[in-house]
Amino acid sequence: MKDKLKEFLKIKDKTFIRDVLTFFIREEFHKVGFKKAVVGISGGVDSALSAFLGVMALGKENIIGISMPYRTSSNSSIEDARLVANTLGIEFHEIDITPQVDSYYEMFPDADNVRRGNKMARERMSILYDFAHWKGALVLGTSNKSELLIGYSTRWGDGVHDINPLGDLYKTQVWELAEFVGVPERIVKKKPSADLWPGQTDEGEIGLSYHLLDQILAGYVDLRLGEKELIEAGYEKKVVKRVLKLVQNSQYKRRLPIICKISQRTVDKDFLYLRDWGL
Amino acid sequence: MKDKLKEFLKIKDKTFIRDVLTFFIREEFHKVGFKKAVVGISGGVDSALSAFLGVMALGKENIIGISMPYRTSSNSSIEDARLVANTLGIEFHEIDITPQVDSYYEMFPDADNVRRGNKMARERMSILYDFAHWKGALVLGTSNKSELLIGYSTRWGDGVHDINPLGDLYKTQVWELAEFVGVPERIVKKKPSADLWPGQTDEGEIGLSYHLLDQILAGYVDLRLGEKELIEAGYEKKVVKRVLKLVQNSQYKRRLPIICKISQRTVDKDFLYLRDWGL
Repeated sequence: MKDKLKEFLKIKDKTFIRDVLTFFIREEFHKVGFKKAVVGISGGVDSALSAFLGVMALGKENIIGISMPYRTSSNSSIEDARLVANTLGIEFHEIDITPQVDSYYEMFPDADNVRRGNKMARERMSILYDFAHWKGALVLGTSNKSELLIGYSTRWGDGVHDINPLGDLYKTQVWELAEFVGVPERIVKKKPSADLWPGQTDEGEIGLSYHLLDQILAGYVDLRLGEKELIEAGYEKKVVKRVLKLVQNSQYKRRLPIICKISQRTVDKDFLYLRDWGL
Repeated sequence: MKDKLKEFLKIKDKTFIRDVLTFFIREEFHKVGFKKAVVGISGGVDSALSAFLGVMALGKENIIGISMPYRTSSNSSIEDARLVANTLGIEFHEIDITPQVDSYYEMFPDADNVRRGNKMARERMSILYDFAHWKGALVLGTSNKSELLIGYSTRWGDGVHDINPLGDLYKTQVWELAEFVGVPERIVKKKPSADLWPGQTDEGEIGLSYHLLDQILAGYVDLRLGEKELIEAGYEKKVVKRVLKLVQNSQYKRRLPIICKISQRTVDKDFLYLRDWGL
């Protein structure tokens, strides 16, 4: 089963997946009358892949990359963000979020890293949407399936955008496809980090490697294996329990706000027409 | 039909609806292990009603109200927010959002009111969640059914929260229920305004009264009347077309980000378990 899961996670036809994702972006943008995309470029592999796909779908003249460092962001992240933008030849902005974040926390000097990290993620979302409105663009998403499933994101921060080409790719698949489409090797190979504070790495925070995480997630979600079957397949009981718990505990992040139903037709429950309906 | 719609919008049993909404809040909080709520108090009737219901559901010691004025916010809004908090006797904070918003727009002095208004709405969301994390609370929503249906909100700003007791109440029903539960008359009776810039009123921006809007929405959404039937019922053709267009054009605001489906089980399409599942 372990081998089957490893095999399952390999992208069989990278050309096809690349083409599906670029077609998807083009379709979703054009059908709502947009041709420009704003994408937050962190220097990491997810946002790099999203920007690459965006350029393939809409043309480099239609992609606006924005790097939004905080004063503790590592220089290498900023340089890697520039590398992505330069490689693609897209419009690129660097917006320092330090003044906005720090002016708020002057009131709360004891606020912990989690609060500060969430505030940064939401400030970045807010800036992406500000640019989107300014430039007549939509926000292209950068959340992959691994982080969506374990809730490794800030609610209404990095987890939200308009159109997300990466949401059905596990992190290890993002690496594979990123390499395939030509994302610079330095970016594909580096340790993933939210870079919210110095020394932070995804795998350190999550407590296991993305390779292991993705196998368990794919087994659970895609192959519908239960806890027992995953343990029988040879994954450590403690790790399996932990991953499944993360998936369950983050279910709320994959949903819209909960509305109390008191009428026959409630916005989030019964009023879910196709977004591109016609009258 | 007009009379039928007016009648339809009247809340038949206010005690029952109040009890359903407070029960809903209590249940939704307790089942995820929370007892405290953060609510943004603007001085308007929606947030006042939400805070009142929150106090009835969770007790006044568990509701934290936050007023988040900008330098252009009217004094009367700030006073009305204080009035709500004082009437309820809840913990109350006033956080000026001017430094955060202005430090960003120093880079873009020509930004228009819409951009600035959206940035303010998202900054407020961000602060509510910062407090929620700090205080171990959830964010109680204040979006009513009228604004949800016409998209009169900022995406990922005032339109998002954790638990929303008001989402199935039209604005005119919010007024009715607010008066019933004892929201101060001054707040129930005043002209609704997002107060993002001086002189702004909802009804001015939307271009029609909430009474008229709610009748058309209830006809369309709840009674499933088509455009033709609404016009035959005596509503002006231009107005009906306008409202239906607003509903259609804002459909994206009532959805999560769109993910490109490339696997059999995609986060936003196939992986929608009950949030309170058990394994």
